Amino acid sequence: MPRPAPHRLLLDSYPRRTTIPTRFQDLDSMGHLNNVAFAALFEDARVRFNWSLGRINRSDGFRAVVAMNAIHYLAEGTYPEDVEIATAVGHIGNRSYEILAVMHQSGRAIATNDTVIVMTDPKEGGIPADYRAALEAHRIREG
Amino acid sequence: MPRPAPHRLLLDSYPRRTTIPTRFQDLDSMGHLNNVAFAALFEDARVRFNWSLGRINRSDGFRAVVAMNAIHYLAEGTYPEDVEIATAVGHIGNRSYEILAVMHQSGRAIATNDTVIVMTDPKEGGIPADYRAALEAHRIREG
Amino acid sequence: MPRPAPHRLLLDSYPRRTTIPTRFQDLDSMGHLNNVAFAALFEDARVRFNWSLGRINRSDGFRAVVAMNAIHYLAEGTYPEDVEIATAVGHIGNRSYEILAVMHQSGRAIATNDTVIVMTDPKEGGIPADYRAALEAHRIREG
Amino acid sequence: MPRPAPHRLLLDSYPRRTTIPTRFQDLDSMGHLNNVAFAALFEDARVRFNWSLGRINRSDGFRAVVAMNAIHYLAEGTYPEDVEIATAVGHIGNRSYEILAVMHQSGRAIATNDTVIVMTDPKEGGIPADYRAALEAHRIREG
Repeated sequence: MPRPAPHRLLLDSYPRRTTIPTRFQDLDSMGHLNNVAFAALFEDARVRFNWSLGRINRSDGFRAVVAMNAIHYLAEGTYPEDVEIATAVGHIGNRSYEILAVMHQSGRAIATNDTVIVMTDPKEGGIPADYRAALEAHRIREG
Repeated sequence: MPRPAPHRLLLDSYPRRTTIPTRFQDLDSMGHLNNVAFAALFEDARVRFNWSLGRINRSDGFRAVVAMNAIHYLAEGTYPEDVEIATAVGHIGNRSYEILAVMHQSGRAIATNDTVIVMTDPKEGGIPADYRAALEAHRIREG
Repeated sequence: MPRPAPHRLLLDSYPRRTTIPTRFQDLDSMGHLNNVAFAALFEDARVRFNWSLGRINRSDGFRAVVAMNAIHYLAEGTYPEDVEIATAVGHIGNRSYEILAVMHQSGRAIATNDTVIVMTDPKEGGIPADYRAALEAHRIREG
Repeated sequence: MPRPAPHRLLLDSYPRRTTIPTRFQDLDSMGHLNNVAFAALFEDARVRFNWSLGRINRSDGFRAVVAMNAIHYLAEGTYPEDVEIATAVGHIGNRSYEILAVMHQSGRAIATNDTVIVMTDPKEGGIPADYRAALEAHRIREG
């Protein structure tokens, strides 16, 4: 998997931003933010992003599941500083789409995240039309 | 990122295996093993694998850090069933190497994991010779 | 809250035992098992204990919720050694009961746990008769 | 352990307050904030409180360890709403002291937390004089 492209490191490439405080639990035995904690932080930003687009996984029959999740670790993270996560939509297919994100801390990118989500809607088959429009409106800016 | 190749799903492709009980904490609000819990389970198998090869991260100056971690989710996981994780070494470069793994539960593959680790040894520069030999001895079998 | 009584530290005081591997995630920045990881380990043993007695929280209307949870930390825990958790029932009231536990590692008690669970059954009001009998059969032995 | 006294539920009884966003990871399979997640949230508020009083655990020889931690669960917590945690000091002994806290969400108390911390300072024996003064300045107000 190639290293993230330069535009992937810039907060401005992503239409949505959120600030999340780190927690003492996020530290590992090396005294840095643990790799798995990065995954949990990205997950939280992604869930809030998905929910804000109007679809929640608990609806009857409708399902959105993570098929692939990849994180590039660029620098060590620290506690108790906040992280800032910026989120966007990448590729949109018939039944799946990408959520792309970058995490900044103390003014620099410390990780990027690529997630592939597969969506099944018992009525429309793949990604419902209204949700597709919401995804299109949050595309990453490739600089 | 392409779907995992068939040999990646087979326990027999990997020289090392470990069984890990799931925990109630691994469940998410859908009642399945959470995506981040998969990452924590793979991490535990990876740390034990790395330690068994004779290098521990806390040594002075010597560092091994995760540069990339990608998980393919193939099926939902359940609690309280155990998971079985099989681990192998993939590509070995000058300063980095891949750890590859598959997670099985109830007789089927539920996820694969690719991790890129970058190693810095103040004495030898990249991967020390003895560690490289240990890595070579645990290569994945490509079937 | 007074220190745990001597019989609370002995595995033999408790009718049920389980061994749980620790995980790299359980470590904190001091390199010991984190306090919250102890809570997660005790929770897992408690959930399995409750389920083995025949009641699962997801049943319609039936609820069992934790009202109080107290942990005494007696010694530091380490990774990657397993922990052994022994579990018993303490006081049984009309609508609530205590689950008591001790955690051992490397041959010594490192923590005790007292949990108060409040149970509501829409049919029987408090603790159902069959569950009360199961609880009575798993009392702690006070030595 | 008796139920928390009325003044323990009021934010105004505690001199320090912090707001913490919940995370998707905090949910359990019932769709509520998990019991262990409460412990992690209280821990984060407590660590920040301790650090703000001027002592950090990593100093040479100086140690502050949690000896007892008890949580009363008063109501279910939800995601994605924030929680507000208010923190104060309770009993102060020669070598140990209590940190007391309450967690509010959506305008009501959902949990209280009592933690006993044992402190060892190789120079002063128990709690150092300057830290004792800082603790005294953050006593809970008993109403």
